[in-house]
Amino acid sequence: MPTYKAPLKDIQFLLNDVYNADQHYQALGYSEVNRELVDAILTEGAKFAEQELDTCRAIGDEVGSKLVDGKVVTPPGFKEAYNAYCENGWAGMCFDEQYGGQGLPHSLGIVFHEMIFSANVGWCGIGTLTHGAIRAIDAHGNDDMKAFYLPRLVTGEWTGTMCLTESHAGSDVGLVKTKAEANDDGSFSITGTKIFITQGEHDFADNIIHLVLARLPGAPKGPKGISLFLVPKFIPNADGSLADRNAVVCSALEKKMGLKSSPTSVLNFDGAQGWLIGNEHAGLAAMFTMMNSARLDVGVEGLAATELSFQGALEYAKDRLQMRAPTGAAAPEKEADPIIVHPDVRRMLLTQKAFAEGGRALAYLLGLQLDVLAHGDAEQKKDAKDLVALLTPINKAFLTDRGLEAANLGVQVFGGHGYITEHGMEQIVRDVRISSLYEGTNGIQANDLVGRKLVANGGALLRKFLDRIQGFCDDNAGNADLAQFIQPLSKSIEQWWSLANVLMTNAKDDPNFLGAAAVDFLEYSGYVTYAYLWAQMALVAQTKLAAGEGELSFYDAKIKTAQFYYQRLLPRTHGLAVSMQAGADCVMSMDVDQFSF
Amino acid sequence: MPTYKAPLKDIQFLLNDVYNADQHYQALGYSEVNRELVDAILTEGAKFAEQELDTCRAIGDEVGSKLVDGKVVTPPGFKEAYNAYCENGWAGMCFDEQYGGQGLPHSLGIVFHEMIFSANVGWCGIGTLTHGAIRAIDAHGNDDMKAFYLPRLVTGEWTGTMCLTESHAGSDVGLVKTKAEANDDGSFSITGTKIFITQGEHDFADNIIHLVLARLPGAPKGPKGISLFLVPKFIPNADGSLADRNAVVCSALEKKMGLKSSPTSVLNFDGAQGWLIGNEHAGLAAMFTMMNSARLDVGVEGLAATELSFQGALEYAKDRLQMRAPTGAAAPEKEADPIIVHPDVRRMLLTQKAFAEGGRALAYLLGLQLDVLAHGDAEQKKDAKDLVALLTPINKAFLTDRGLEAANLGVQVFGGHGYITEHGMEQIVRDVRISSLYEGTNGIQANDLVGRKLVANGGALLRKFLDRIQGFCDDNAGNADLAQFIQPLSKSIEQWWSLANVLMTNAKDDPNFLGAAAVDFLEYSGYVTYAYLWAQMALVAQTKLAAGEGELSFYDAKIKTAQFYYQRLLPRTHGLAVSMQAGADCVMSMDVDQFSF
Repeated sequence: MPTYKAPLKDIQFLLNDVYNADQHYQALGYSEVNRELVDAILTEGAKFAEQELDTCRAIGDEVGSKLVDGKVVTPPGFKEAYNAYCENGWAGMCFDEQYGGQGLPHSLGIVFHEMIFSANVGWCGIGTLTHGAIRAIDAHGNDDMKAFYLPRLVTGEWTGTMCLTESHAGSDVGLVKTKAEANDDGSFSITGTKIFITQGEHDFADNIIHLVLARLPGAPKGPKGISLFLVPKFIPNADGSLADRNAVVCSALEKKMGLKSSPTSVLNFDGAQGWLIGNEHAGLAAMFTMMNSARLDVGVEGLAATELSFQGALEYAKDRLQMRAPTGAAAPEKEADPIIVHPDVRRMLLTQKAFAEGGRALAYLLGLQLDVLAHGDAEQKKDAKDLVALLTPINKAFLTDRGLEAANLGVQVFGGHGYITEHGMEQIVRDVRISSLYEGTNGIQANDLVGRKLVANGGALLRKFLDRIQGFCDDNAGNADLAQFIQPLSKSIEQWWSLANVLMTNAKDDPNFLGAAAVDFLEYSGYVTYAYLWAQMALVAQTKLAAGEGELSFYDAKIKTAQFYYQRLLPRTHGLAVSMQAGADCVMSMDVDQFSF
Repeated sequence: MPTYKAPLKDIQFLLNDVYNADQHYQALGYSEVNRELVDAILTEGAKFAEQELDTCRAIGDEVGSKLVDGKVVTPPGFKEAYNAYCENGWAGMCFDEQYGGQGLPHSLGIVFHEMIFSANVGWCGIGTLTHGAIRAIDAHGNDDMKAFYLPRLVTGEWTGTMCLTESHAGSDVGLVKTKAEANDDGSFSITGTKIFITQGEHDFADNIIHLVLARLPGAPKGPKGISLFLVPKFIPNADGSLADRNAVVCSALEKKMGLKSSPTSVLNFDGAQGWLIGNEHAGLAAMFTMMNSARLDVGVEGLAATELSFQGALEYAKDRLQMRAPTGAAAPEKEADPIIVHPDVRRMLLTQKAFAEGGRALAYLLGLQLDVLAHGDAEQKKDAKDLVALLTPINKAFLTDRGLEAANLGVQVFGGHGYITEHGMEQIVRDVRISSLYEGTNGIQANDLVGRKLVANGGALLRKFLDRIQGFCDDNAGNADLAQFIQPLSKSIEQWWSLANVLMTNAKDDPNFLGAAAVDFLEYSGYVTYAYLWAQMALVAQTKLAAGEGELSFYDAKIKTAQFYYQRLLPRTHGLAVSMQAGADCVMSMDVDQFSF
């Protein structure tokens, strides 16, 4: 069973050495957010993750959440952890002080999320879904709604959900059939059944605020005819006390591959009372407010699984004795060598390590852009918005797919023991598997990337990012020690742009071309983005080593991991580049009835 | 829940059109094995798989095998299926008629295994492990042992196990500590604890014959000091009736990621009475007799999962309506199009299909070699032995890794629904995950490939296989329609040989080079082997189409799938070729304490 230890040194390396977070926070007006405060937050966050959450990850999987007489019973320790989360202010960490939050930068929220996701991702839906609800109400709700609901959600007194999916309407939210009918008092009656509702019912808090997509009478068909409603589990009185139980019930919890501690609910709305959020038929925009926030978090789930599995596999590889090193006994006093001597075991560990640290660099880069979006000037905001738009689908899909790969490598390092539940490695595979599926499957992310984020703007967003990487390459062109990274990186960004143009050109003539190439293009983009971040990290490490500053072994490891990434993982782009250019014929030419006989 | 339907048309295509099995069987002296008989066996085998096994796959996962008061209770339907399996002669299908078997070719056993593994892999250990025990006794036991035990094992009256692993001795079987001490009567007392024993205890049959690796007093250290013993659960009387319960008990069943219906046992031997199989200290050779048989079967598990997941995903993709085709509504009368219109969904389905049919071609090719090994002349046997030696690790590791990939794609086609247990897609992922781990992890397979199968013979085995492929390319060099396959295939085998030489050359100077490159080399080998088989299948399909023979749409689909394979999957070799040549430095240079801080 891996015992999670927050990778504080690596987190601090990124915040302090790579991203100069101190300056970043000061420049954005977070006057109190200095290194001392950040370190204190990290230490406390790590403690919460390690002591309150890591300790109930396995039992959460074993016991699961259960529906008993219409009420959800969460696993032992889960409610206690939630109480601690609220009491210590984690619930409102990054939200406005006027609503009872701590007003801390979003980037620190991302760091905190990485830690709690690693420790116990099944527990975490309670927080992340509530955050989505807060953001949607904040962005689209009226002043009364904000004043009443946000303080209760921000403090965690009440929790929130996102009720989008129906059994026949998943990726295609335009098919939603749940009905909303106006009542005389300005409220609406909501009727329909929603599925896959994370924390749709639970025993953590007194009230649950459901944000529900539904269709008003006469609404246009498709996604432009859906509206968003706020539907409380209990109708609150004006003073916040709870009055009537609303007509929304949890009729079942889904049995799932993993994430068993998280109650994934079927919710029946039977004329439940709700209130419109924002304008009629404008639910899609509100949904994307929740969704974009959630997508970033889901990418972090992939990173968190990678880190946890790496930690578990590393400990095992140092302990487990099997066979001798190819170069002769490394531990002749023992009956066999620890398996970390074997090149293939190291290949697996280094793959996990390179993905974890590369993924962390990407997720935190995005987190810092969220700070800019909140507090930067107009030009900074524009740049941040562009970067977030481009990188969000990459971050979501690439980190989660790498998370699945890394978690499977973790099992593989354990050999047959990895398959056994008590070692905790297979749970990571099962828990992370959902992250490639929810909040838009990774195929949807890839289509978003090649469609809205590439073709729709003629490649402008990508070009802007490539210029940034090109600038980095130019700045370091004379650095001989860095040439091992800068040269392949330069080639990669050239090829990336050329591939983007292949896609954009072909998209004009063949509407299927983009879809056929989308996933390969996203993967390609992910590998090159990591290459950029690894080169940046290597440069910082090189500088520190040259200056003899800090823990030199740490910086040396950074450079070695960067080398491994460039030599062993970045080459995957070669195949992707060929494959994505194959065109749509080879996927479209087969008739439906030719798939099987 | 995917309902399994045996892919008889594809099986017959391979046997009849590609491999000319009829001629093959006749030439080897299987005089009664003609197409009519084969078709009858396939039809009955499919019926058994579909009616007895497919029907209890889900319940097997849900209920699992349980240890109750020291006895294993298997899930509903499992024992009934076992009875039918024995009564209908499947148990002894490919074993000698003198022992009560059917004497059918091993290749047909592989086909039958594919079907039952797809239908319910958790059930199948009872057969495959018994087969391993039969082979080991047959190859290494004395005549009395064979005469007494084989008829009872071949008919399925009793079952067998392979007891190799101990908690500290997995991949490194030389660390086995279980003790064997000679008794006065020529038998031995076996003491120790074995883990991960598939079907180590069950309620299917009256007696279980454990084949146990143990160490005699004064035996040499390591793998050359282990001996193999036959340890029955009940000591049989001379007439086969059961006398004393032997001192071997199942103390626990493992909780696992999947394969929950299969009782994976911890077995405690406490001075259990056993008999030596073969010579003292010669247990390793006997173990490999079991292991090689099992490895081929485990590869087939990967194929079987690929097929099952493909079938489930295909049905869903034809039914599920979400969004419109990129080219405009394909089913305007419906509220949305079936998702099979989307290029990325087709990419996933075609990947599954190409892996299933390519994997089938490889597994059956190997199956046919087993027939030759049993009945060919000396030269044929030598060729078959060489091919089996080379392809066994590729078949085991590549088919299982592709099985995991395909099963995950099947989940992905279902979107969020794929994560829900009732749809049965996630079970396939969990069930197939073990196949990359047991009977030698896929890393062990890769090391076997680059070590024993490549370097140890100076590349002779590989060169022989490449010459065969080169011959195929030469024979078809003038076939313009086939050039789309022959040209890239020719390049690939040239590169394969060149990479093999890079490995062999570097292995001399750097003992770590091989291990660092092993998995990439195996993957590379797998992709090119499939390319060869896909080109062969495309040639047959082309010939049939030209002749207007048979179901033309089927042959057209073969060519289209081959095109997809060559354009979208074979390119993965580009990255692997670069990555495997990176050398060992990038995996070995990091100190153990630099992996984490």
